[in-house]
Amino acid sequence: MGAALALAARGRGRTAPNPAVGCVIVKGGHVVGRGWTQPGGRPHAEAGALAQAGDAARGATAYVTLEPCAHVSTRGPACADLLIAAGIARVVIAATDPDPRTAGAGAARIAAAGIAVTNGVRAAEAAAQNPGFFSRMARGRSFVTLKLALSLDGCLALNDGRSRWITGAAARAHAHRERALADLIVVGRGTLEADDPALDVRLAGLEDRAPRAAVLSRSLGALPSSKLATTGATLLRDFADIDADASVLDVFVEGGAALATELLVADRVDRLLIYRAPILIGGKPGIGDLGLADLADAHGRWLPAGVTDLAPDRAEVYLRAPAR
Amino acid sequence: MGAALALAARGRGRTAPNPAVGCVIVKGGHVVGRGWTQPGGRPHAEAGALAQAGDAARGATAYVTLEPCAHVSTRGPACADLLIAAGIARVVIAATDPDPRTAGAGAARIAAAGIAVTNGVRAAEAAAQNPGFFSRMARGRSFVTLKLALSLDGCLALNDGRSRWITGAAARAHAHRERALADLIVVGRGTLEADDPALDVRLAGLEDRAPRAAVLSRSLGALPSSKLATTGATLLRDFADIDADASVLDVFVEGGAALATELLVADRVDRLLIYRAPILIGGKPGIGDLGLADLADAHGRWLPAGVTDLAPDRAEVYLRAPAR
Repeated sequence: MGAALALAARGRGRTAPNPAVGCVIVKGGHVVGRGWTQPGGRPHAEAGALAQAGDAARGATAYVTLEPCAHVSTRGPACADLLIAAGIARVVIAATDPDPRTAGAGAARIAAAGIAVTNGVRAAEAAAQNPGFFSRMARGRSFVTLKLALSLDGCLALNDGRSRWITGAAARAHAHRERALADLIVVGRGTLEADDPALDVRLAGLEDRAPRAAVLSRSLGALPSSKLATTGATLLRDFADIDADASVLDVFVEGGAALATELLVADRVDRLLIYRAPILIGGKPGIGDLGLADLADAHGRWLPAGVTDLAPDRAEVYLRAPAR
Repeated sequence: MGAALALAARGRGRTAPNPAVGCVIVKGGHVVGRGWTQPGGRPHAEAGALAQAGDAARGATAYVTLEPCAHVSTRGPACADLLIAAGIARVVIAATDPDPRTAGAGAARIAAAGIAVTNGVRAAEAAAQNPGFFSRMARGRSFVTLKLALSLDGCLALNDGRSRWITGAAARAHAHRERALADLIVVGRGTLEADDPALDVRLAGLEDRAPRAAVLSRSLGALPSSKLATTGATLLRDFADIDADASVLDVFVEGGAALATELLVADRVDRLLIYRAPILIGGKPGIGDLGLADLADAHGRWLPAGVTDLAPDRAEVYLRAPAR
C-alpha cells in the first residue's frame, strides 16, 4: 500500500475532477502492474495497472489507495468491473470512495464476485492525499490552503509594504511545490497590483505543473488588464465561483492580508501553511481584524499538523478543527 | 560531567553574582562527593563536594563544570587551592572561568601542583547554564531574555487589549520555571497597569524561587504605588540601572509590546522566548515598529535554538547572532 500511495502522489494536482489514486498489482511476491490516475483523471489507476499486468493479473492481489469505482461513465469503465474481469483474487483498499456513485458499492460488487476484499488499510493517508476531492464529496466545496509567509511577529512586510524577502530559498521552493499540488492559485487584488507575482512553478522538472491562477476581488473594474495578462490569471468576484467549478478540488491562496482575513472571517480556510522566518519586523500584520468577541473564540480552531525545517525558515501546518 | 552539569542546574537563578557550578568527585568508580553553588554564591561547588568526600578526595578525580577559581575573596578560599590541598589526582573541567581573576589561572595553578588537568569537556553546555555570568564577564552587562506569548499571527491581545489567555497551562508553567532561572523580572509600565501581573513563581515546590521584579518606565511619576506594592516590584528608569547591579546576571523581560520594542531597537535582547499558541487573532501586535530601513536588515539576527512542545502551544527559542 505504501508503494500505491507513492504512485498516487504522482498525480496530485493534475487529476481533477478525479482524485489521485495509485494501484499496485502483486503476484507471487512480484509487482506485475503499477498505475496511477493520469492527468485529467483518466485512465484510472486500476486500468493502468491492469493493462501493465496483462494475463499476470489472474490470481493476483491488487492494492488500491481508493475504493475502485462502481459507476460506468462516458469517460471509461467501472474499475470494479475491470478487476473482476481480469481475474484478480484479492483487493486491498486504503479508503472508501466518498463519491456517492461508489461509496461502498465498488467494494461490495467485487466481494459479490467472490474476490477477497480488505478495506481501511492506511485510509487516513489516502484521504490526506486528496483533501479537495474528499471536501467536495463531503461538503460540496473545495479545500482551501492559506499560505502565509510571516516573521516571528506575524508580519508579511515592512510598514511601507516592501515584502521581498521574508523567507529564504528553501521555503520559496517548498511553496512552489505546494502550488503544483493545487488546482487553482488565488491571490487578492492588492497582491496582484503590488507584488507582480509570477504565479508559476519554478522548480526544475515541474515547470509545466503550474495550476490556473485567479484574482479574487469584489471591485474588478479598474484592475489593469496588463497585470492580468502577465500572470495569466482569471477574474473572480466571489469564492462561490470557485466552488461552482468542479475542476477545482484544491485551492492555494497566496495573499495578501485582506483576502486572508476575508476568508478566515468567512471560515473558508481548511489548512494554514505558514512559512515562518526567524526575523522580527514590527511591520504590516499578516492577518487583519478577525472580529473576535472573545479570546476564547480563537482557541480550538486549528490543530497543529506538523512542522518542516526549511532552514533558516520553518513550514508550520495547521488543519481546521472539526466544527464545534 | 553530565552529573556535574545536572548539579549545577540546581543553583540556577540563585547564585548571583556567582555562576551556577556543579562538582562531582569520583574515586575507584564511585561518587564520593557532590556539590553545587549554594544560594548567594557560596560555598562554591568544589568546597561542598570536597567536604562531602573528606579523606576519600585523596587520589580522586574531580569533575567541575567551571574552572576552579584562583582568587581568594573575603567570602571564601580559592577552589584551586582547596582541590590541591585535598590531594585530588585529576581535575576535569567543562569551561574556562571568564572571570578575569581566574581565566585560566585556576587550571594553571592546579597543573603546576602536579595534578592532571583536562579542560573543555562539554564547555558549551556549562556556558549555556550561565548566560548572565558569561555576558557580564565578556560584555559587562546582563543577559536579557525577552518572553513573548503570541498567536500564529504575532498578536499578544485583542484590539481592545484583552490578553487572557493566549497560551495554555503548560506554556504558563514553563514561563514560571523560566522566571525561577532569572535574577530579575522586568515588565513595562503598561503591563503593570493593565494586567496586574503576579510576578511570582506559581509552581509546586518552587514558590520561594521568584526573583526580584522591576518596572521599567521613563515616566514613573504617576505610577500608582498600590500597583507596585501588590507586585513588590521596584522602579527603574533605565536599563543601565540593571547593568549597574552586579547581583543581576539574567534578566527576564515579560512585556509588553512597548518595552519589547524599545529593547529590540536598542539591541538589548539576547534571547527570544516565544510561547506560540495555535490561534489567529488579528489584534494587537506583539512588537511595534523596529525602524528597519530594509528587510535585509531583519535577517541573520536570530539563530533558531530549539522548539519545545507545550501542547497545545510551542516554546520557540532564538539566540541573538554574533554582531555582524
